[in-house]
Amino acid sequence: MTGDLLIRSVRPWPNSLDVPAVDVLCSGGKLAAFGTGLTAPPGVPEVDGGGGVLLPAFTDAHAHLDSTRLGLPFRPHSAGTGLAELIENDRRNWRTAERTVSERATHTLGRTIACGATIVRSHAQVDVDSGLEKLEGVLAAREAHAHRAHVEVVAFPQCGILREKGTAELLDAALRAGADLVGGLDPAGYDRDPVKHLDVVFALAEKHQRGVDVHLHDGGSLGAFQVELICERVAALDMRGKVTISHAFALSTVDAERRRELVDLMAEHDVAVTTVAPGVRDPLPLRQLRWSGVRVGLGQDGIRDYWSPYGNGDMLDRTWQLAYRNGFRPDALIEMCVDVATRGGASVVGRTLGLTEGAPADVVVVPGDTVTAAVMDRAPRTLVVHEGRVVAAGGELV
Amino acid sequence: MTGDLLIRSVRPWPNSLDVPAVDVLCSGGKLAAFGTGLTAPPGVPEVDGGGGVLLPAFTDAHAHLDSTRLGLPFRPHSAGTGLAELIENDRRNWRTAERTVSERATHTLGRTIACGATIVRSHAQVDVDSGLEKLEGVLAAREAHAHRAHVEVVAFPQCGILREKGTAELLDAALRAGADLVGGLDPAGYDRDPVKHLDVVFALAEKHQRGVDVHLHDGGSLGAFQVELICERVAALDMRGKVTISHAFALSTVDAERRRELVDLMAEHDVAVTTVAPGVRDPLPLRQLRWSGVRVGLGQDGIRDYWSPYGNGDMLDRTWQLAYRNGFRPDALIEMCVDVATRGGASVVGRTLGLTEGAPADVVVVPGDTVTAAVMDRAPRTLVVHEGRVVAAGGELV
Repeated sequence: MTGDLLIRSVRPWPNSLDVPAVDVLCSGGKLAAFGTGLTAPPGVPEVDGGGGVLLPAFTDAHAHLDSTRLGLPFRPHSAGTGLAELIENDRRNWRTAERTVSERATHTLGRTIACGATIVRSHAQVDVDSGLEKLEGVLAAREAHAHRAHVEVVAFPQCGILREKGTAELLDAALRAGADLVGGLDPAGYDRDPVKHLDVVFALAEKHQRGVDVHLHDGGSLGAFQVELICERVAALDMRGKVTISHAFALSTVDAERRRELVDLMAEHDVAVTTVAPGVRDPLPLRQLRWSGVRVGLGQDGIRDYWSPYGNGDMLDRTWQLAYRNGFRPDALIEMCVDVATRGGASVVGRTLGLTEGAPADVVVVPGDTVTAAVMDRAPRTLVVHEGRVVAAGGELV
Repeated sequence: MTGDLLIRSVRPWPNSLDVPAVDVLCSGGKLAAFGTGLTAPPGVPEVDGGGGVLLPAFTDAHAHLDSTRLGLPFRPHSAGTGLAELIENDRRNWRTAERTVSERATHTLGRTIACGATIVRSHAQVDVDSGLEKLEGVLAAREAHAHRAHVEVVAFPQCGILREKGTAELLDAALRAGADLVGGLDPAGYDRDPVKHLDVVFALAEKHQRGVDVHLHDGGSLGAFQVELICERVAALDMRGKVTISHAFALSTVDAERRRELVDLMAEHDVAVTTVAPGVRDPLPLRQLRWSGVRVGLGQDGIRDYWSPYGNGDMLDRTWQLAYRNGFRPDALIEMCVDVATRGGASVVGRTLGLTEGAPADVVVVPGDTVTAAVMDRAPRTLVVHEGRVVAAGGELV
């Protein structure tokens, strides 16, 4: 039966060196039983976890699958500095990539799944240059991997909404064409009119009854102001639980008192946040956010594209980055990063993951003495299971 | 003949996708010729570089081989916060490790070499608890890999010099026992008397005619003051070119004008600096240091030990960290990080590496379209060559 599987010999998180391995029975796409010496019902396939660590599957809560060049010949970085130049550089180059958006997004989504993510939220750029081409490429990648992962797509106005006429209409078309959420980008700092930008975004969300995911790089008091504007709209439109702020550098660039206000405001309006564990910008206040009840997810951002050479499809690698950038050493804190990268991201997209009976059979097996050791070693994933089906093994799709 | 080797099919840095592969002839431990279709003299072994990128070998300019637990069962992090507690935690645990210091250091040095470093400067803790045991362990590891890498050992007063009676005498004994340099540790912030601490360090250096490598985590004006104290002693003892400041957080925690003064002072006294690309502390001003003529090296720091779970023996991985933490995207800047991790570190220990005829045949071959792609992919090293001999292949020692 679909979604039935017996996974032999894994050590479910929480684990330790002296916890014996168990078997896990999946039934109808759910985790059905944990125990030693379980017997597979007739016809149910068995796979060997090799005694590895069992984790919930990863969620990439913030990817840009439309721009990726992973797997193609490496191109030297050709952009100058600053967001406007990065946008222009992408425009100069994306059409002449060796493969179509669909092919590139499909490849990188496959790598992401092979590395253990079975839930992905990808932004797809919608602008007057590319129209809906990038969105259609990401939707095609989602279709190609429909049996391997749950993918959400954000209609993302990477070039602003107000700066180029026709973008709002394209976002509207994108939502009709299959985008799950409407995005936004630095309503003040880039698009120069935070109220008008957010009004367009939230009007589209209301019209199509979709969620919102706004890129907010703006920091300091300007960024904090826009967090407030977003929360005001969440309250007005009764959109608690349906809005995400991505990056949210404001949270790490205001003083402690203001940060407390913003975190409380986000918790009150159930506005989620995603981070990509950036290398230079200060980390988000992870513990404070989680203790306050804010849903926090982790994402890859761009993956070797015209914007940046970084990124490789591996959310366990990104989890390591999150721990490293926070200077976390105790196992409990490194495991918190794993939780952000798995269950946390799932909660951002409104789904539930976990290792309890009845939870979706979306799990990863990775070699390692403990969860922390697995994060440090970042070995290829032994198994990736989506809805009780093995979708990758030994680091490759099956 | 020893040190003779023909390496077939590599693309020496600088390279690009359309540069054809060449062969490299090593003779007497030196790089002797680059060209296509080279013929190996009779009896000279040939190895295949598989068209990979050829780099100078890596230099780990700042390791702590004495504390490593790499390859042993993973232990949860048991230390509280703060340097004093980290020191105490190590003291509570190191004697009960499953393997001796010598065995552990030998294993991790082997991994470091297998990942491409053929020059290593390791600190070895010298204190009243461990005496010279840790130093002897690192010296034994050096001996075990003597044909694979050049290793320098620093007699490192990890617990301060003045806080525990007898440490200065142990450092003296360590230098007699084979340590190459004398170390120091936060003369003000930890040992509480910067002048007295540095006077002990430099007196030992003068007595034994050895170099100095001081850990300086102290930041801001206190750290800057100690950079000045160090430079004053370099001038007084005519030790230009023989002194290193490790970490040097002062350089990233003072204002631009003060930083300029410190960098100029270090350049004037030819005081080198090493960084470990820390995840939380701000990066050093790499470009400013290099443009000013300061020798800069990269190191691994501790490698999965009682201090921290991070570190894996891989200097290419650490190079990626250096680039990521600086937010470098242009290939030239990422290649600068490779230069820091290879030739830069070599210069810190007073050696010369490079890819020119006559340079030591200490090279690494790594798969990748370009140098930047190799940093991003961090694939296992195809070949590691030390003095014209293959010491590792396919990521494993030979």
